[in-house]
Amino acid sequence: MNAEIIAIGSELLTPNRKDTNSLYLTARLNELGVKVSFKTIVGDRLADLIGVARTALSRASVVIFMGGLGPTEDDLTREAVAAALGRGLHRDQQYVDWLRARFADRGWPMPENNVRQGDVVEGAEILLNKRGSAPGQWIQADFEGRKTAIMLLPGPPMELTSVFEEHCINRLRQFVPQLHIASRELKIAMIGESMVDQRAAPIYKNAMDVETTILAGAPGEVQLHLYAQAESQETAQARVDSLASTLEDEFQDSVFSSNGESMEQIVGFFLQMRQATLAVAESCTGGMLAERITSVPGSSRYFLGGAVVYDNSLKSSLAGVPPLLIAEHGAVSSEVARALAEGIRERCKATLGVGITGIAGPDGGTEEKPVGLVFVAVSDGSKTDVVERKLPGDRERIRQWATLQALDMVRRRLV
Amino acid sequence: MNAEIIAIGSELLTPNRKDTNSLYLTARLNELGVKVSFKTIVGDRLADLIGVARTALSRASVVIFMGGLGPTEDDLTREAVAAALGRGLHRDQQYVDWLRARFADRGWPMPENNVRQGDVVEGAEILLNKRGSAPGQWIQADFEGRKTAIMLLPGPPMELTSVFEEHCINRLRQFVPQLHIASRELKIAMIGESMVDQRAAPIYKNAMDVETTILAGAPGEVQLHLYAQAESQETAQARVDSLASTLEDEFQDSVFSSNGESMEQIVGFFLQMRQATLAVAESCTGGMLAERITSVPGSSRYFLGGAVVYDNSLKSSLAGVPPLLIAEHGAVSSEVARALAEGIRERCKATLGVGITGIAGPDGGTEEKPVGLVFVAVSDGSKTDVVERKLPGDRERIRQWATLQALDMVRRRLV
Repeated sequence: MNAEIIAIGSELLTPNRKDTNSLYLTARLNELGVKVSFKTIVGDRLADLIGVARTALSRASVVIFMGGLGPTEDDLTREAVAAALGRGLHRDQQYVDWLRARFADRGWPMPENNVRQGDVVEGAEILLNKRGSAPGQWIQADFEGRKTAIMLLPGPPMELTSVFEEHCINRLRQFVPQLHIASRELKIAMIGESMVDQRAAPIYKNAMDVETTILAGAPGEVQLHLYAQAESQETAQARVDSLASTLEDEFQDSVFSSNGESMEQIVGFFLQMRQATLAVAESCTGGMLAERITSVPGSSRYFLGGAVVYDNSLKSSLAGVPPLLIAEHGAVSSEVARALAEGIRERCKATLGVGITGIAGPDGGTEEKPVGLVFVAVSDGSKTDVVERKLPGDRERIRQWATLQALDMVRRRLV
Repeated sequence: MNAEIIAIGSELLTPNRKDTNSLYLTARLNELGVKVSFKTIVGDRLADLIGVARTALSRASVVIFMGGLGPTEDDLTREAVAAALGRGLHRDQQYVDWLRARFADRGWPMPENNVRQGDVVEGAEILLNKRGSAPGQWIQADFEGRKTAIMLLPGPPMELTSVFEEHCINRLRQFVPQLHIASRELKIAMIGESMVDQRAAPIYKNAMDVETTILAGAPGEVQLHLYAQAESQETAQARVDSLASTLEDEFQDSVFSSNGESMEQIVGFFLQMRQATLAVAESCTGGMLAERITSVPGSSRYFLGGAVVYDNSLKSSLAGVPPLLIAEHGAVSSEVARALAEGIRERCKATLGVGITGIAGPDGGTEEKPVGLVFVAVSDGSKTDVVERKLPGDRERIRQWATLQALDMVRRRLV
């Protein structure tokens, strides 16, 4: 069963306003087994609104309108839904009296235009709103031969959630066939999106009972979202788990996360499990690696710190790289990456040390050492791995790729 | 003239993903005098996509499709737009060859499914994408007797903005009736949004000919967007400039940017102008300050580097803080912030040194030193300023506030 969510209000069509209500509604609908197929945002023009309502009724079984239920002349959702359904609108005098009493309770007279909030689509149930003056409405209709549930909800997030939780969830449970849902999220590092797709598609296309979406995450990261519906929770879970494990077999240790965790969470998890500590010396990433690691609460248990060695003199003074090594091989070299990892590890007395050096651009590239060339090293004191990469994209993307490369190398050392 | 923006991708219909591209596009369209009347979000089903495209073409003069231009079988925007327009789709062999060469340059073979990215709607111009493999497309059509401009843009924000800036703005300028527009963006540091509004509103409400929007930027930053339309460029510019200068008088040196530059750009600009260099020692911000500074191309001219001193032993070994000082006052103290700034400055031989220490949470707070307590110090060798702040919000926001506080203190030293 599919849904459309419609947000109403000209302010939502300005450069500064995002609709966030729909994320909450989507999560709630998904829990009930309803998928959102369309989201529409429209302003306060009646003709636009009626058109949007008609389109939605023609393509979705659950249609939720948010906003446009206030007392002003701009608030036209009631009129538009009635027109789209070909139904009348009548004033619910009982609601108007209730609203008037509510204003009186607070010692205010009710402004006369508030009576419009008692206008109800023919056949609708009124849904009381504890947090505001705009009531919701629930309508069931046969629209073009399809059973449809229609909700009108107030726009302010607190009012919307209150009315939806109290009045709509139970009604929807009656309306929607009962279904159970399970999902998984795999994350893969350092393989391009199209390459992941080429290898994953033959696998997930065989799993007809699981819906799979491939998504590019941060540079260097690809996500596989798996989603299944079934008659029982066990069956739904078994379906996504089975596909997840086949995909994990295909991508082996490139899968760094099997339940949506971030790379820095996974690295932190393994460091703690091995009772290991980490120190980093970053040149081109300029602190990004340390920043990502320390974004995880509790990272002080395994992350000691390190150095941002932008200037060559600091590569020597803070991370112990011999100046001669830099003079001989250049700051961007396998040798310097190695020395950074080994040097910072020793200075910080860490289990593992990471060194990163490269050319993030846009300037500073040469024919021999172009923009995007990055060396990443990881050392545990007895063995140091160095990886050379030519990374694509602009300064920001190169820095993000290099950061993920370093995290991935640390992870592979610990797994 | 009105526009519809359509975001394509099943992932945008999940509880976790917001469309943010449309805010950027709305701002750009508004600058050209085009208003957005509808925004639609739709998944990857071809029938849904064709329906959405037809609806959009029937109600808007500018229609922008974002996403669904990748190489996978889920990427169906090209097919849907062609079907909605009743036009064919042909493969642009020249583009495919160009893409293949681009892959070859990087030493990778092009996966065969990437050829689909050369499929072009009949009559469309291909818009090269410098940052990815999906090109945009520009189509002008007479749809049901209305002149319509149609754009297909890649979904990743960096690719979308790059293609839109480079290829679409000029074409839209030709397409849209001419209007003269000027805008300014002032940025204010370390004053709350409602306080800015309280002081700014009486000023901008007098300037009826300028549209003003107040926006919260990153934590600690408030933006004032000024926008004017006029018959001539000079008049539009004079209107925004006049209001900008009155606002600058009100907020004095809290205005750090008067044309939209970022704080790290401004700090870099002043450091270069004064031929000064900077080094930083960060505890709770964990590399975020260095990362922000080095996000600016060319920052190696004034940023030397520094240390991420998460562990207390590193505060001493990398930044020269006496262990006794830490024992006496605690790592989160005015004294340690001062010692970090002075120590890192000396070790890195920089003009200015910055020290940050604090409690980013969620754990680690005490009654005396709660989560959000941060000390930031800036030293030039003869004078060291230390600021104590109790910052609001969660771990991420506290780290961002502290980073901005440090940048702002450096800026004030240099102005």
